[in-house]
Amino acid sequence: MAYGYIGSMKTQPGKRDEVVAILLSGAASLEALGCRSYLVGLDIEDPDTMVVTEVWESKERHDASLQLPEAKEAIASAMPMLTGEFTSRELVVVGGLGDNDE
Amino acid sequence: MAYGYIGSMKTQPGKRDEVVAILLSGAASLEALGCRSYLVGLDIEDPDTMVVTEVWESKERHDASLQLPEAKEAIASAMPMLTGEFTSRELVVVGGLGDNDE
Repeated sequence: MAYGYIGSMKTQPGKRDEVVAILLSGAASLEALGCRSYLVGLDIEDPDTMVVTEVWESKERHDASLQLPEAKEAIASAMPMLTGEFTSRELVVVGGLGDNDE
Repeated sequence: MAYGYIGSMKTQPGKRDEVVAILLSGAASLEALGCRSYLVGLDIEDPDTMVVTEVWESKERHDASLQLPEAKEAIASAMPMLTGEFTSRELVVVGGLGDNDE
């Protein structure tokens, strides 16, 4: 079954749009790496907190994607704009609409 | 921009599969109601906790879907199997891969 990841991060004041741009810049290329869905959202109650929801063919493919030079560069450039407040949750995705496995 | 909702709920012991089946039973019909993605996952660290991630064209369409008789029936039948431990988070979805708006 597919692997899901929900992560949140908070940006330093005024840095949100820049971090969003970094997060979105690589999204289109993820499909070829085994990613079925990668969505970036802003928390309605705290728009400096971003939530990324991801669905991957497997945890292995997700983890491998983070080792690519592009991913490491993106993380390195975003990190100084974040407050360090992170949350994460891993899921076994059991089904639904829009996981691109239909 | 699209509306996102991430909700979690915990099932009573032994009731998880039944609740998952209820959650998934209506998923295919949601697309016609303005839903772009509706995924059901099990928390890896606590598989009796389910996480539903949803992307809708608007909050209005999401809220309207909950007023349909089918949705009310599904909620009523699942509710006795839940512990009452819920979380929810609302998002403004800014983009990514797989929101069916590309």
